[in-house]
Amino acid sequence: MAFKYNRLDKDDVALLMVDHQAGLLSLVRDFSPDDFKNNVLALADIAKFFDIPTILTTSFEDGPNGPMVPELKEMFPDAPYFARPGQINCWDNEEFVKAVKATGKKQLLIAGVVTDVCVAFPTLSALEEGYEVFVVTDASGTFNQTTRDAAWSRMEQAGAQLMNWFSVGCELHRDWRNDIEGFGGILANHLPHYANLIQSYTVKNG
Amino acid sequence: MAFKYNRLDKDDVALLMVDHQAGLLSLVRDFSPDDFKNNVLALADIAKFFDIPTILTTSFEDGPNGPMVPELKEMFPDAPYFARPGQINCWDNEEFVKAVKATGKKQLLIAGVVTDVCVAFPTLSALEEGYEVFVVTDASGTFNQTTRDAAWSRMEQAGAQLMNWFSVGCELHRDWRNDIEGFGGILANHLPHYANLIQSYTVKNG
Amino acid sequence: MAFKYNRLDKDDVALLMVDHQAGLLSLVRDFSPDDFKNNVLALADIAKFFDIPTILTTSFEDGPNGPMVPELKEMFPDAPYFARPGQINCWDNEEFVKAVKATGKKQLLIAGVVTDVCVAFPTLSALEEGYEVFVVTDASGTFNQTTRDAAWSRMEQAGAQLMNWFSVGCELHRDWRNDIEGFGGILANHLPHYANLIQSYTVKNG
Amino acid sequence: MAFKYNRLDKDDVALLMVDHQAGLLSLVRDFSPDDFKNNVLALADIAKFFDIPTILTTSFEDGPNGPMVPELKEMFPDAPYFARPGQINCWDNEEFVKAVKATGKKQLLIAGVVTDVCVAFPTLSALEEGYEVFVVTDASGTFNQTTRDAAWSRMEQAGAQLMNWFSVGCELHRDWRNDIEGFGGILANHLPHYANLIQSYTVKNG
Amino acid sequence: MAFKYNRLDKDDVALLMVDHQAGLLSLVRDFSPDDFKNNVLALADIAKFFDIPTILTTSFEDGPNGPMVPELKEMFPDAPYFARPGQINCWDNEEFVKAVKATGKKQLLIAGVVTDVCVAFPTLSALEEGYEVFVVTDASGTFNQTTRDAAWSRMEQAGAQLMNWFSVGCELHRDWRNDIEGFGGILANHLPHYANLIQSYTVKNG
Amino acid sequence: MAFKYNRLDKDDVALLMVDHQAGLLSLVRDFSPDDFKNNVLALADIAKFFDIPTILTTSFEDGPNGPMVPELKEMFPDAPYFARPGQINCWDNEEFVKAVKATGKKQLLIAGVVTDVCVAFPTLSALEEGYEVFVVTDASGTFNQTTRDAAWSRMEQAGAQLMNWFSVGCELHRDWRNDIEGFGGILANHLPHYANLIQSYTVKNG
Amino acid sequence: MAFKYNRLDKDDVALLMVDHQAGLLSLVRDFSPDDFKNNVLALADIAKFFDIPTILTTSFEDGPNGPMVPELKEMFPDAPYFARPGQINCWDNEEFVKAVKATGKKQLLIAGVVTDVCVAFPTLSALEEGYEVFVVTDASGTFNQTTRDAAWSRMEQAGAQLMNWFSVGCELHRDWRNDIEGFGGILANHLPHYANLIQSYTVKNG
Amino acid sequence: MAFKYNRLDKDDVALLMVDHQAGLLSLVRDFSPDDFKNNVLALADIAKFFDIPTILTTSFEDGPNGPMVPELKEMFPDAPYFARPGQINCWDNEEFVKAVKATGKKQLLIAGVVTDVCVAFPTLSALEEGYEVFVVTDASGTFNQTTRDAAWSRMEQAGAQLMNWFSVGCELHRDWRNDIEGFGGILANHLPHYANLIQSYTVKNG
Repeated sequence: MAFKYNRLDKDDVALLMVDHQAGLLSLVRDFSPDDFKNNVLALADIAKFFDIPTILTTSFEDGPNGPMVPELKEMFPDAPYFARPGQINCWDNEEFVKAVKATGKKQLLIAGVVTDVCVAFPTLSALEEGYEVFVVTDASGTFNQTTRDAAWSRMEQAGAQLMNWFSVGCELHRDWRNDIEGFGGILANHLPHYANLIQSYTVKNG
Repeated sequence: MAFKYNRLDKDDVALLMVDHQAGLLSLVRDFSPDDFKNNVLALADIAKFFDIPTILTTSFEDGPNGPMVPELKEMFPDAPYFARPGQINCWDNEEFVKAVKATGKKQLLIAGVVTDVCVAFPTLSALEEGYEVFVVTDASGTFNQTTRDAAWSRMEQAGAQLMNWFSVGCELHRDWRNDIEGFGGILANHLPHYANLIQSYTVKNG
Repeated sequence: MAFKYNRLDKDDVALLMVDHQAGLLSLVRDFSPDDFKNNVLALADIAKFFDIPTILTTSFEDGPNGPMVPELKEMFPDAPYFARPGQINCWDNEEFVKAVKATGKKQLLIAGVVTDVCVAFPTLSALEEGYEVFVVTDASGTFNQTTRDAAWSRMEQAGAQLMNWFSVGCELHRDWRNDIEGFGGILANHLPHYANLIQSYTVKNG
Repeated sequence: MAFKYNRLDKDDVALLMVDHQAGLLSLVRDFSPDDFKNNVLALADIAKFFDIPTILTTSFEDGPNGPMVPELKEMFPDAPYFARPGQINCWDNEEFVKAVKATGKKQLLIAGVVTDVCVAFPTLSALEEGYEVFVVTDASGTFNQTTRDAAWSRMEQAGAQLMNWFSVGCELHRDWRNDIEGFGGILANHLPHYANLIQSYTVKNG
Repeated sequence: MAFKYNRLDKDDVALLMVDHQAGLLSLVRDFSPDDFKNNVLALADIAKFFDIPTILTTSFEDGPNGPMVPELKEMFPDAPYFARPGQINCWDNEEFVKAVKATGKKQLLIAGVVTDVCVAFPTLSALEEGYEVFVVTDASGTFNQTTRDAAWSRMEQAGAQLMNWFSVGCELHRDWRNDIEGFGGILANHLPHYANLIQSYTVKNG
Repeated sequence: MAFKYNRLDKDDVALLMVDHQAGLLSLVRDFSPDDFKNNVLALADIAKFFDIPTILTTSFEDGPNGPMVPELKEMFPDAPYFARPGQINCWDNEEFVKAVKATGKKQLLIAGVVTDVCVAFPTLSALEEGYEVFVVTDASGTFNQTTRDAAWSRMEQAGAQLMNWFSVGCELHRDWRNDIEGFGGILANHLPHYANLIQSYTVKNG
Repeated sequence: MAFKYNRLDKDDVALLMVDHQAGLLSLVRDFSPDDFKNNVLALADIAKFFDIPTILTTSFEDGPNGPMVPELKEMFPDAPYFARPGQINCWDNEEFVKAVKATGKKQLLIAGVVTDVCVAFPTLSALEEGYEVFVVTDASGTFNQTTRDAAWSRMEQAGAQLMNWFSVGCELHRDWRNDIEGFGGILANHLPHYANLIQSYTVKNG
Repeated sequence: MAFKYNRLDKDDVALLMVDHQAGLLSLVRDFSPDDFKNNVLALADIAKFFDIPTILTTSFEDGPNGPMVPELKEMFPDAPYFARPGQINCWDNEEFVKAVKATGKKQLLIAGVVTDVCVAFPTLSALEEGYEVFVVTDASGTFNQTTRDAAWSRMEQAGAQLMNWFSVGCELHRDWRNDIEGFGGILANHLPHYANLIQSYTVKNG
């Protein structure tokens, strides 16, 4: 019953960005606001870089949950976008699921707010339908760490894999030589200490 | 051997509130007192809102463990209530189990004090009898986080799912349109920051 | 150069509630949302109980900062209320200062959001004018603990005293016999574990 | 493939106390010294109370590891005691294993210092031989929490159950009526807040 | 304006134990229950050892605050004991102050529950009357660390010195040769790791 | 001996940015990398916005300490810039001090890496020369929190005031009406949650 | 389906040290720098002591990632060393895998920087090829604890075992009598408190 | 009443190393063992480098406190060394004080174990005698952080300055050009991340 390592494959993966809305974001407290903003935008940059089909969705965006954060909308102007009229689990929205299936991918990256609902529910639904699900843990936030721990446990139990945006990027890239500048640029923008390393290196090697 | 996502179903679930007693509550130290009180009452509000059969029980309530907190008794005046004469695991009390079975439900939400005993023991017993058990982690408290971690591990290993009151409510509700006012009201009362979002929204949209 | 203990005196103190607004509250992260809401309302209850002149103010309440939290407005319907048109330090608002002076009190309790600005600035201004200032630390919130530590340091250095709502209430009350029921009721509502003690006591002593 | 809840059974369980030695104890830093001492002695009291066969062992007690803590030796004067000449895993000591087997029990409670070695190794060995192993997590200590987390993970993966001394005691006792005074006495000695509850109760009910 | 080091002097110091009551103790959450119990009893042992006049007091002990913890009453059977009928600040109780003055001491050690009220208020009162006050920080507890930090700040500002029970004992003892066995015995009972050192030493040196 | 509140005055203050170098930044561990980068750039934006004379300096920038972070050099292309040949305390560099004095300001904002050396040393030197010094605590970083606490203590003792970049901005701005858009823009860029509030507000008020 | 305890066997294990490079190390923040350096060198000492085949590899060592830390190179002058030209997962480097296979061992100890990439990827690859993988958790570092938790979860799920360097050493050594001096020397050099125990013991037994 | 910045002056300072003994070190829990060992040895290296008169002392070294750590004895073979027969405050030992005075220095660096006793007591004594005292906070350890906070408060209040070993070294060194290699070597040995910077720099600049 050997373990099979199905790596993230840039040609077989889609990204679901669920409910990163201005109101809901104010509820996130398991990351500092700066860290969380950086993580979400880093994941978006990775999706752009690898040209991964990306699907956006919001819940009740005309009410207190607020509009999707504008940076995401700007980065994915042509992505399928579903403002759900009421379904809490985005997998209960037929158009959304149709769009996911239309990508033809077998692997799903899922990130969202809040982790225990907007991420966990579609994760469990997608696992049930046979997708391989990779939860992007640091681009997903919730009320506090205790809540996060329980949500992670439920998703692990169902077979989801937990990754951070950096390991997602590295597993997709496979080899620096595929594009040193491009991938290095993403790291420089989102890992301040890596940017420092690059700068020290560059100055010295002029 | 595919994963099957059995969602919480308001028509097939019962709630067990175990040993939320005045004395025992003073032992809880893995949540702040304000947070814990809020979590327990939020779970109770959810049970009322979805009309979920609820069963209350206490252990030795005439001794140092103290009486059940009055808010719970007031909210569930007609619920089956079992003041156990001595059984530590409420599943060892025949009347209690009879009442659980009488609900005819296959899913159980369990919350209680303390997590490692009053929650873990009936959770393991119910799993053995074939129930699907969802532990409401943030309405269950214990001595410290180390104890909680071990108790969660034991219950996960046996197949219990760990959820927080908010995700329980959302999984039961499924769709905001089922009752926007009602469900929003629970969130407003128990998530202060969500109340702020609602207030800002309401004022601006008069 | 002996120390003089000027106790809080219910006949010589006023309370300033500064910028507890729906938007700004979402920035507070040095307290859990439940804890902070409880602390602010406990302080308000204390002011009502001791009939302390209370002055409310907001900053830019028509913009993103949002309206004052409704509970406070309801509790103090007749209190002087100043929606400042732009002054960040409420002490720069002449009407506000006039109202403070009109109370004729020498002691000021100050609480607000965020601690390092909306609390610290009027605290320093009031100290300069010779008021004794007592910062209510747990009804004042800010971005994180590091920011709070620096703000506390600056206010201490200037001579402000740091208190929590519970010690404010106790120092004003002086003697339980002045009103056991009334004061005990505030504690029961805002200290869940004290409520448990009362309940255990009451049940046993019928 | 149903879950089977094999409860701790006082007639089918033995306790292994591994390397609670004066020198090694100074390495424990995932509990405060007071907490850890209390936990170890509480577990010992429970073993005495339920008359559970207990086996003591030390590693290299004439060297820097130091002698077994005297309280344990005094509490179990007649227990099998093995001062191992060099084996790190006590299961590598034939006499020790012979003594375990001589108890005829199928369940083992294991506690020791340090968790990742003196507890983890015999836990894995005993699991391999078919014992049900219950690690008493709070009577086992190690260098820091990161080390503990990894050790817990390894033991869970192999099938060990993680419990704390309090839940061990409660699962063995089953029903308060079996001996209210006796069991309550252990709690009063090792749970200061429970002692307070008892005292308040007793005074009031004289 | 040179600094003058007035050491704690066993012939010129009295100890005030304020409101260590069964109910109030359940509110203490800035120490683990085991640590706090150990600290309070260690301080009591030190007072006994150095024969320091000790005064006990409680607040409303017939109500929910509960009776003084029995260990303290047993250790100081002949100490002045004041069950205050209602005064929150024990310095407002004339008999209590009379007893303090009757000791004829100029230095006061103060410990109590909760730090921000039962310790801070008499500390400020005693400082005003010219006493040197040493707050025993780890035998004084309160709701959480934020509250403690503010309370410490207020007392420091007024001139109180913050000490822990161990440094109190050492400053009183001055020289091990005054009584090695006696003082070592207190450390062995209340510092588990020091007990381990003693045990390793003793075993090896017969 | 009244307290005098000398507010930060945009016409009487200069900013010193000390040793924010690529190598040294990798030593900072009392802030997350994202938080720290954001704080430093926010402070720089504030200096630009209020047109505050800014002086940059580095220590040994050709060696392992590395070059100044490029964002700062780009933002202040015409600012006096001193690459110190060896002086650890930048106040020991005559050109640097000359430049500070040439600003003619009496208030200094100081931020740098590491807090205990590159910030503390010039802070103490400037205080000695009669400047009012405001340390920008969250744009200054060091090895860990223990080191920071000690460094803050030393600077407080000498009379420095501790502020965060947000309170610096607010104290300089005084009144939102001076430039709502401009000041709001800085907050939107550096306080993600404030940006969310603005976005929700804007969308709704279109 | 019994558990099989395959112990680490010094004759059947190889060690992979992955990307412990000067630049990458500055990204590690889930251990203090002193702790991490000590852990890595302790693991290296253990490999030397047991003569375990060790393979070193680096990623892009001519760029910002920097050279391998010199201590490792010096300790393993003859070990296979692979400066990978671009592959992120070292298992994608054919020479590296060839060298691993050439050892003929079935067990692999893997440590590296960062945990979620340089450790997790080859761990999953090696598990897929049927190796038993033991991750040395405290000689592997990453950005923060949240990232580590997710990485550990992914590796556990795939069947890797999590160990710390100390338990690795103990499981390999089996019995102190195999070489008391040698093994004790490693502990003395890398566990300061164990060194203290040895010193106290030695002095007294001179 | 201007502030006077009396910098540490290598020609006017002595170092007191108090009670860094094998037994006492096992009590230190406000630093990790690796961090603390590193800090103490770094301070010793600094004293050697600047040729600062150093005085060593121990308390009761034949008993459980244990011998001074051997590294210190080896580094300062000719330093005055006082094995105190019983005095807890080393300032109560006449020979010790005579040796301090014989140095003719006005500034004292003090480090020791435990902070609240072995450091705080001589600090207060030396301040009383007019010395400028600089407590080396990270080469001084104690039971836990709460104890440390109180001890720091007491010493600050008396006028001591709190520094870490790194800032001590930098304030003594003043200018890198005084000895780049020598001072850099100390940093490389005791700041692992600084060593990484040096290594990356050196490799690149050959």
